[in-house]
Amino acid sequence: MTTAISTEAPTGCRPGAFGNATHLICRACGATGPLGPFYACVECFGPLEVGYEFPAVTRAEIEAGPKSIWRYAPLLPVPADIATFRSTDPGFTRLVDARNLADDLGLRQLWVKDDSGNPTHSFKDRVVAVALSAARELGLKVLACPSTGNLANAVAAAAARAGIRSVVLVPENLERQKILASAVYDTTLIAIEGTYDDVNKLASEIAGEEEGWAFVNVNVRPYYAEGSKTLAYEIAEQLGWRIPDQIVIPVASGSQLTKIDKGLQELIKLGLVEEKPYKIFGAQATGCSPIAQAYRAGHDVVRPVKPDTIAKSLAIGNPADGPYVLDTVRRTGGVITDVDDETVVANIQRLARTEGIFAETAGGVTVGVTAKLIADSALDPDAETVVINSGDGLKTLDAVADKVGPKTTIPPRYEAFEDFWKDVRP
Amino acid sequence: MTTAISTEAPTGCRPGAFGNATHLICRACGATGPLGPFYACVECFGPLEVGYEFPAVTRAEIEAGPKSIWRYAPLLPVPADIATFRSTDPGFTRLVDARNLADDLGLRQLWVKDDSGNPTHSFKDRVVAVALSAARELGLKVLACPSTGNLANAVAAAAARAGIRSVVLVPENLERQKILASAVYDTTLIAIEGTYDDVNKLASEIAGEEEGWAFVNVNVRPYYAEGSKTLAYEIAEQLGWRIPDQIVIPVASGSQLTKIDKGLQELIKLGLVEEKPYKIFGAQATGCSPIAQAYRAGHDVVRPVKPDTIAKSLAIGNPADGPYVLDTVRRTGGVITDVDDETVVANIQRLARTEGIFAETAGGVTVGVTAKLIADSALDPDAETVVINSGDGLKTLDAVADKVGPKTTIPPRYEAFEDFWKDVRP
Repeated sequence: MTTAISTEAPTGCRPGAFGNATHLICRACGATGPLGPFYACVECFGPLEVGYEFPAVTRAEIEAGPKSIWRYAPLLPVPADIATFRSTDPGFTRLVDARNLADDLGLRQLWVKDDSGNPTHSFKDRVVAVALSAARELGLKVLACPSTGNLANAVAAAAARAGIRSVVLVPENLERQKILASAVYDTTLIAIEGTYDDVNKLASEIAGEEEGWAFVNVNVRPYYAEGSKTLAYEIAEQLGWRIPDQIVIPVASGSQLTKIDKGLQELIKLGLVEEKPYKIFGAQATGCSPIAQAYRAGHDVVRPVKPDTIAKSLAIGNPADGPYVLDTVRRTGGVITDVDDETVVANIQRLARTEGIFAETAGGVTVGVTAKLIADSALDPDAETVVINSGDGLKTLDAVADKVGPKTTIPPRYEAFEDFWKDVRP
Repeated sequence: MTTAISTEAPTGCRPGAFGNATHLICRACGATGPLGPFYACVECFGPLEVGYEFPAVTRAEIEAGPKSIWRYAPLLPVPADIATFRSTDPGFTRLVDARNLADDLGLRQLWVKDDSGNPTHSFKDRVVAVALSAARELGLKVLACPSTGNLANAVAAAAARAGIRSVVLVPENLERQKILASAVYDTTLIAIEGTYDDVNKLASEIAGEEEGWAFVNVNVRPYYAEGSKTLAYEIAEQLGWRIPDQIVIPVASGSQLTKIDKGLQELIKLGLVEEKPYKIFGAQATGCSPIAQAYRAGHDVVRPVKPDTIAKSLAIGNPADGPYVLDTVRRTGGVITDVDDETVVANIQRLARTEGIFAETAGGVTVGVTAKLIADSALDPDAETVVINSGDGLKTLDAVADKVGPKTTIPPRYEAFEDFWKDVRP
């Protein structure tokens, strides 16, 4: 795949199908090739990512755009008319000035980027929206994924809205609530007798055999992954076109973390923000912390693990972007570390109690790791910090089920209330 | 309460505590009185609502405001500096161009105002945010409510973020998921051995006995209710400062419906939109349809019922705004009607399948009633229509649990997939 960089649309695609994207580039060996439904380098089997030739883009142009990720269309591999297609229009979620949590953690200035506000309540709506555009432009007819929950919800909803067929593959023992919240969109939900790894392997087989399928996180992954850059764009824009000093990011495959870094670098190159140093920190659950382990051991490669954690949306034992996460964290002066499940639950509660944000387990991981990094003096408490909440607590209710509940149960009489209240009133 | 209209802040409040609000007015007898923690007319015991003396407000001023309900602060009983206080900053949710659902229903142009995108995923975040401001300005120290779910979530989250104490009262047999999604915010959650009506009655007793409590939907209800006007403001702004022809609104107490009408009238008076006729339609579940029954019978008063429906967020048997709903619907040329629980579930699925929006039962009621109104020729299929989705399907999963699920369960082998797929492929 040493083809010269192409500015032509892939065969069969209309001109401008991928906006300002011009080529694919191998993240391992640097070889470049044309845009298309490719995801592995023909030279070295390395993962491909999207390259661009950006025109000048101004803050005003972006600010005049739609209140969704499509305001950043010129920076994504999507056509200029993307906002006219039926999508779930994710993004532009709240950046919460988390003063209570900052006080609780001993930080000077903390923001929570709350992606539970997306249409299906996780950051997956961002990546799926970009993958859907690529699938449409490439003429693929089925939107599909292997998933443990959030991705299945996002794919099924996006396909319903776009009016195209979807197939989602999940482990048969998946929590009932995640199955229902995908199946309701009338997707072809297939339960697989096996683990998530089995499901993933089957998805790759189907992607190889069936024509016209877009497995969002397999064969259109280069486009899909670009969706995470919008987290970086939004954080910078919502801070008044500024990069924060420190960002703490949950890590499953590691794609979100590396793409946030890529997004910030693009903003700097385009002159949309001032160049400045920033540190990127990664957060894993101890029961699935292969990248954190490699970081601590000083390794460049990541040894796969068998996940055992309640943070199922982060439970990828063999993370595709492992080495790139290590590189990004080390290059920016950050750290990647982990916290155990008990700490995860305590930090779901901490975020809810202080900021009124009910995060899924991944959010508990990120806040928990933030606290640990402060205790370890790895995070500067005086530097401006952003933490990402990638999903919603309503999808992982079991995590807190034994920890919270009614403070009392009383009959419906004022005297009964008075009896209870006299002991607890402030 | 025939006091002259006051432009003074209530005793103990700072100037401008309630923005451009100037007085309270009895909706039954029209008597006016000063702002304060009052909710019933001293003349006739009628419900009070907030009156204003609006200054000139421009579209540009609003558009330059925060991306939350606080962009409409000049039209709400909140101080001009409201956005500097810690709130969940709800609102500015998606107005979805629902072309698939329009085709399915046979409508020319349909929009879904999707309030599941609010911080705790229901429209209750809007009203609670305004009630919280009133409570703060009035010096009240405890934010409280009786609730069957959504309101409890919103109150607990808003109080956590604001750093004030909250108490939520719920029936002891409430679904576990709604209890958890309130308790996680560390609210004082009190389970009551009784029905929602028992809980409601106890709340009124506590409001009468305890000083310094703001029961959002009892003693600060006039302020709380104003929050629903922001739905009207957003719909108009998101349509390009235009009023749609028809709006279909779910009805529990009826407050949301009457306040959307009030909001539209204000926009017309302020010259922010052009005056035009519009029709307002109400949607109830048959198992709790006291206002729809009164409408059909041609009555002006509403006879209370004992609720029996899966649409629990609409299950108020004795709706406070019943007569005002009848008046609004009749005055604008609309209708209020109802659909049974089976239809509710089918229309949750319809909205999910066509638009990728997973609504709670109330959303199924509203879409189901919309379909019924078209079949009855009560809704003009050629007129521009907006339907409100007030909450999130993740909170009422049980409604669809028997209707949706995996299409098949197979072992993790391509041959097994192939076997299944050959029968269902398009």
